[in-house]
Amino acid sequence: MTVSDTEWSTNEQRIAREVLDKAYMREVSALIEEVRQRSGSISELDEVWKLHDFLSARRHEIDGKYDYRYSVLIFVFARLIEEGWLHLEELEGLAPDKLTKLAALSRM
Amino acid sequence: MTVSDTEWSTNEQRIAREVLDKAYMREVSALIEEVRQRSGSISELDEVWKLHDFLSARRHEIDGKYDYRYSVLIFVFARLIEEGWLHLEELEGLAPDKLTKLAALSRM
Repeated sequence: MTVSDTEWSTNEQRIAREVLDKAYMREVSALIEEVRQRSGSISELDEVWKLHDFLSARRHEIDGKYDYRYSVLIFVFARLIEEGWLHLEELEGLAPDKLTKLAALSRM
Repeated sequence: MTVSDTEWSTNEQRIAREVLDKAYMREVSALIEEVRQRSGSISELDEVWKLHDFLSARRHEIDGKYDYRYSVLIFVFARLIEEGWLHLEELEGLAPDKLTKLAALSRM
């Protein structure tokens, strides 16, 4: 990892925070929508427990994913891009080597 | 515990099974309805996790509660009566001492 992966200028920190919040809001909105849809079609107990399993997995995943530490932020962004919660273009303003690394990581 | 608490005639076994199934159906229907209602009003992630906590508790409770072993059935019925999923009258046909015990237990 290069120095610039873990060193973030004030401007980069601001961009990172904004973009991470944006991805978080998108993922949360999609989750809420999915919970509503799944719940609306439940007619058996087994489906209630499937919803429970789904929520257990999503909670574990979301709790772990939105890690604001600058030392890991590049990987957080790469994952969010891969999962479709962010677009690389939304990170414009970060140092070029961060963007290059992100582009490479999110293609993996 | 008296002998008749754990010894169930064929007719009592039939009644017990029917009534337990009935309580189970009622509780499951109420749970499904509550999940739908809670889900419909969710607008924040915190409420999604509250739904998850609720389902964790209900799953643990329901998994443990519907115990068809005749040795514990009197206590299962007493609990279901106390919780409102059954009425004592629905157990008519059981031996009088079972009904007396159930009436006493469900008033505790």
